[in-house]
Amino acid sequence: MVQIPNQQPAKRSVPTSADVARLAGVSRATVSYVLNNAGTVRISEPTRRRVHEAARELGYVPHAAARSLRAGHSRMVLMPTSEIPMGPLFSRFFNELQWALSRLDYTVVQYASLGMTGEDAARAWAELRPVAVLAPDTSALGPHGVTVLKRSGAKAVFTLGPQRVEGAHALLMDGRRVGEAAARHLLARGRRRIGAVVPEEPGLDLFSRPRVEGLRAAVADAHIAGASVTELPLAYEEGSAAGLAARWRSLGLEGVFAYNDEYAMLLMRALQDEGIAVPEEAAVIGSDDLMLGRLLRPRLSTVRIELPSGRGLAELVDRVVRDPGAEPEVHDMLGAAVVHRESS
Amino acid sequence: MVQIPNQQPAKRSVPTSADVARLAGVSRATVSYVLNNAGTVRISEPTRRRVHEAARELGYVPHAAARSLRAGHSRMVLMPTSEIPMGPLFSRFFNELQWALSRLDYTVVQYASLGMTGEDAARAWAELRPVAVLAPDTSALGPHGVTVLKRSGAKAVFTLGPQRVEGAHALLMDGRRVGEAAARHLLARGRRRIGAVVPEEPGLDLFSRPRVEGLRAAVADAHIAGASVTELPLAYEEGSAAGLAARWRSLGLEGVFAYNDEYAMLLMRALQDEGIAVPEEAAVIGSDDLMLGRLLRPRLSTVRIELPSGRGLAELVDRVVRDPGAEPEVHDMLGAAVVHRESS
Repeated sequence: MVQIPNQQPAKRSVPTSADVARLAGVSRATVSYVLNNAGTVRISEPTRRRVHEAARELGYVPHAAARSLRAGHSRMVLMPTSEIPMGPLFSRFFNELQWALSRLDYTVVQYASLGMTGEDAARAWAELRPVAVLAPDTSALGPHGVTVLKRSGAKAVFTLGPQRVEGAHALLMDGRRVGEAAARHLLARGRRRIGAVVPEEPGLDLFSRPRVEGLRAAVADAHIAGASVTELPLAYEEGSAAGLAARWRSLGLEGVFAYNDEYAMLLMRALQDEGIAVPEEAAVIGSDDLMLGRLLRPRLSTVRIELPSGRGLAELVDRVVRDPGAEPEVHDMLGAAVVHRESS
Repeated sequence: MVQIPNQQPAKRSVPTSADVARLAGVSRATVSYVLNNAGTVRISEPTRRRVHEAARELGYVPHAAARSLRAGHSRMVLMPTSEIPMGPLFSRFFNELQWALSRLDYTVVQYASLGMTGEDAARAWAELRPVAVLAPDTSALGPHGVTVLKRSGAKAVFTLGPQRVEGAHALLMDGRRVGEAAARHLLARGRRRIGAVVPEEPGLDLFSRPRVEGLRAAVADAHIAGASVTELPLAYEEGSAAGLAARWRSLGLEGVFAYNDEYAMLLMRALQDEGIAVPEEAAVIGSDDLMLGRLLRPRLSTVRIELPSGRGLAELVDRVVRDPGAEPEVHDMLGAAVVHRESS
């Protein structure tokens, strides 16, 4: 045996597949076939059992990264997350998606983008060599980012947001639908001068902007004389809402779409405390259909957002991974339906 | 050149560090030093620039897994997630933690456990070869799971939950504190016969059970004649709350701790609809200090949960990774303070 000078003896505290092979009395290839469930190779049941027992005894688990290095691809679906907490609707949707992807043998990994955007974000994600990426709009991925990901081996790049990005499949989340639905409802209830609550909190602009755009577009399209939209900045705190409520009568508005149910509840309470009758003097509608909106008096009207099934999206991801050369597809993800209660 | 039969020519669509080295006219080692920011090796600025330019031109990004295979360890901190959506408090805490870890040069990855628990979960996590794992209590990791993770090379295993797990560092989230604080408050307000709302929704038991235990323990410790705790199962829907409110007077209770603010709001509305005066006939307290609780009339009393800074926890993770042989530590993470408003 030749000693290599100036080299530390390898630490063997972490068991390897070679250790398993030795203990089970089989080849490393056999260990790999058994533990990676390679269906193509036939291994007898007793051998299979021996390998599993040896792995358990040594505490060996396969290395996902090593396996994907050998195979030249991974089964990792990367879902970058933004810092904005998800509501119950999106939480449920992403849970369903993760379950469905795991049943198709993908490993779903969420990755905090931490303020990285564009190509920087794409490079950070690419280091993990995902086979598919579902990038939220907050990442501002851009066409160059898509290229970076594809060059690193990603077979499917999806963007989730209001706009298409060149080269990527688009899962369109068009927030304008929400504002459009609210506008049509308020107009139908006879309101002409409509307010649009715009959250002052940083980061929410990305979500509130399309909703207000949709509201404006639907009001314009209705061609109703005297109809208008006024933006109302509001911070998510009682003082801000009290200030807006105090100015309400001077604004001359008849109805308000309040971004979401939480802002709607905040504003409605402030209006009531100011002695402004809801819905008579101010029709209020939120969005998201939170259960808590039903507990208020009057009960809060809302725009319910509808998402497709996570299972369908998982199947789409899998189809694109298998056919990475296909033309980018566009899928409409977001539906919006008014739930009319008592506040409007 | 020898042709190997029956072997496909290697696809070269994904650029490698060898391609970068060739284009930049340097060695692969130099490429690796430059792109992995290895501070120990001196590389001249022009060479550095040439490597970066070649990498950009080819669209090459380093492979995190390959790098960690070479280095024998990764910088990945794995945070398995449960299916229960996090409230705003925990979302903020985890964001802060992720930022702080990334500043310490860790890559934070969230991983959906999807119902896996114990050693199964540990093996799935171990395949990603994280350097540290922060396991939520929902995973029921157990001492064997900790061993599996450590054997695969994890230098720091933390559990987040109400109990210690042998071999792991404990970030204790003792929910009993919340129930204890609520009990002391209701007793101090002169309430003796106390109800404890227990959500009927699956999965929440893990969080509600310690809260009720804390409530019971604090009531028992107070040694007040006639003091009692009655569990009140409640589903998060108006019908269930109306049913409980209809039975309220027959239960003979004077106060109720309602698991969290959402259940408290639901129950309080139902009690009011039934004509039961809050707090006179029923003192109500929730927990989590949601902003929406302040919008109700009477304003909702609540137990505010306090978590340490994410930065402190990130430093703890880093310290343990650097000293993996150290004795398991126990850190108390959860504080509880009553915010007394009008409902109690």
